[in-house]
Parts: sequence; C-alpha cells; structure tokens
Amino acid sequence: MITQDPVEKFLADLASAGPTPGGGSAAAIMGAMGAALVSMVCNVTLGKKGYESVEAEMREVLAEADRLRARLTAMVAEDVAAFDGLMAAYRLPKASEEEKARRSAAIQDWLRRATEVPLACARVCAAVIGLCRRASEKGYLQVISDGGVGVLAAHAALRSAALNVYINAPALKDRAFADSSIAELEKLLGDGAAQSEAVYTLVRNKL
Amino acid sequence: MITQDPVEKFLADLASAGPTPGGGSAAAIMGAMGAALVSMVCNVTLGKKGYESVEAEMREVLAEADRLRARLTAMVAEDVAAFDGLMAAYRLPKASEEEKARRSAAIQDWLRRATEVPLACARVCAAVIGLCRRASEKGYLQVISDGGVGVLAAHAALRSAALNVYINAPALKDRAFADSSIAELEKLLGDGAAQSEAVYTLVRNKL
Repeated sequence: MITQDPVEKFLADLASAGPTPGGGSAAAIMGAMGAALVSMVCNVTLGKKGYESVEAEMREVLAEADRLRARLTAMVAEDVAAFDGLMAAYRLPKASEEEKARRSAAIQDWLRRATEVPLACARVCAAVIGLCRRASEKGYLQVISDGGVGVLAAHAALRSAALNVYINAPALKDRAFADSSIAELEKLLGDGAAQSEAVYTLVRNKL
Repeated sequence: MITQDPVEKFLADLASAGPTPGGGSAAAIMGAMGAALVSMVCNVTLGKKGYESVEAEMREVLAEADRLRARLTAMVAEDVAAFDGLMAAYRLPKASEEEKARRSAAIQDWLRRATEVPLACARVCAAVIGLCRRASEKGYLQVISDGGVGVLAAHAALRSAALNVYINAPALKDRAFADSSIAELEKLLGDGAAQSEAVYTLVRNKL
C-alpha cells in the first residue's frame, strides 16, 4: 500500500479543479512557513555560545512566531469557509423580489467576510515580516539564510492575500468599508515590500 | 486522541531546532505550491465554455506543471541529503594528514552537491514562473488570481533556493564550477524577477 506524503496530499488538493483550497489557503500556508522559519532561527539560537545577550529577545520572537503560525494555519479553514459561503450565496434563488433582496444581502455579508479574511491574513504576514527582521538581525549566523527564506515566504504570502482582497472589495456596496480595507492593505503592501527587501539584503550580506 | 494536521506537522518540523527540513526544503515546497496552483488553473479551465481554443495548450501546461511539482517535492529529500552529507563531512576526523586530505575531499564533494541541488531547484522554479505566465494569460478568468499566487510562490522559491547557492558556492575550490553556477543563477534571478512581476501585473489588471 502506498502512503501519500501529507504535504503532497495538500499540494494535490491545491492542484485539483476543486475551488478550495485555492490561492487564499496557499497564502496562509506560505505565511505559516515564514513564521515557522522564524521559530527555527530562534530555536537554533537559544543556548548557543555567544548569543546569551539576545536570548530574552529570541524567546519573545519565538513565542510570537509560534502564535502567528497557529493563527495562519487556522486561516486556511476561514478562507475555505468564506469562499464556500460566498459561492452558496450566489446560488441562492432569485425568482421573486424578496428572494432577490435576500440573495443580495447574503452576497454582501459574505463579500465582507471574503474581504476581512485575506486582509487579516495580510496583517499577520506583515507581522511575520517584522519578526523575520528581528530573527535575521540577531539570530545564529549559521541559520541566517532561513530568516531570508522566511521573509520571502511571508512577503509572497502578504501579496497573495492582497490579491484576494482586490477580488472581493470592488463588489462591496459598503464603500466606506471597502475603501478603508484597500487603504489599510496598500499601507501593509508598501511597508511589507520595503521591509522584506531590507531583510533580504541584510541576510544576503551576512552569507 | 488529537491528530495533528499533516501540513501542521511539516510546519512544526520546519520550526524545530533540527537543521532539516530548513530553508532549502521550504524553497522546494513553495515552488511546488506554485506548480500546484498552475495545475489548478488548468484543471478548472479545461471543459469551460468559451475556452475551447486554449484546451490543447492548457493540457500541455497541466502535464508540465504536474511533472515539475513532482520534481520539486522530490527535491525536499535531496536538500536534506545534501545538507546531512555536508555536515557529516565536516565531522570527519582530521588528526593525520591523510585524514585531513580525505575530509577536505569529502567536504568539496558535498559542497558541490549542496550547490547543485538548490541550483536545480532554482531552474525548476524559473520554469514554473513560465507556466504561471501561460496559465494566467489564457486560463479561466474566475481563477486567474490563483495564477498570481502561483507566480508569487514560485518567485519566492527561486530567490530562496538562490540563498542556498550563495551559501555554498564561495567555499568551492573548483572555481570554474562555482563561477558558472553563480552566473547561471543570476541569469535565472534576473529573468525570474522580470517575468514574475509581469505576470503579477497581468493578473492584477484582470481582477
């Protein structure tokens, strides 16, 4: 009997024609990989000779990276639920005026959720980028490249989550919410791009 | 009894202080996520009304994306083996001149392998970026953002693999091999950056 590797199973689900897991779930998992690599740098650094002075900070970064990783893996289910909810809302009957109104309200509720979920993912990925900076600045030199891979993963995840906000926000009738979501997202994207390139350069120069 | 989600198990291994899986494995998995998203776009597009004229090309892109995904998941084991081999070589005895020579030769052999494996990963990720372009240009509009997430994953994977080449190539005594590896890598990085930004913009403008 052939046992399929668990990560290969996730990848096969991603590759299938089924709508979920899709790009939103992939974004959350990439962000979680970034957080996991921060944890690795911290775990390796703790107890290393010559790194006593950064121990307290590494413990703090580790606890936060572990927390954000758990948050991001939980977001896979939230992304799937938001997508499925929105698709179900679009399939609601629209024969009578009352049905049309109920369907339209349901679509708006789910569009809001399908905007909030990737925006929350983008926020967490931005926080992971900040942790990558601290881990790469102060972590054990021999594993510093893992901090570099972590920031690339977290930044790709942030931009991926952004695409899902851009898909859903335009159809929102609550323009104040849509506009404030896009404004927050663009701030996260701008800061995230600058900070992740700085971390990558820092790592590259330490190799 | 609590069953840990399989992807969470991989992430927990990544986060641990154990040296493998590390950034090299994360790069291969991110590349495989990019390839899986290309496959998803193709799988969703096939059979859709209005997309009959791209069916042959989508089948071709799908077959290639499936093949590259399998290649990238296999690279996780290759990355771990190269890393472990190199670490074992560094631990070889170096008491006598003969031992020193044997150790030095083993280190060089494994450094070469630890350069070849991420360079091969970078090459495959560059090919995935090319497939993302084709899938995003011609695939079903409703899933085009998944092509965008795919290109972000594949590009982050390419840059991540590059970090591992940059770590190992400088210590190689075979400078001709080291220089040609770096030259090839920088070509892949330059082309990959330009092409992935073009695909991201293409997707962004279709949303």
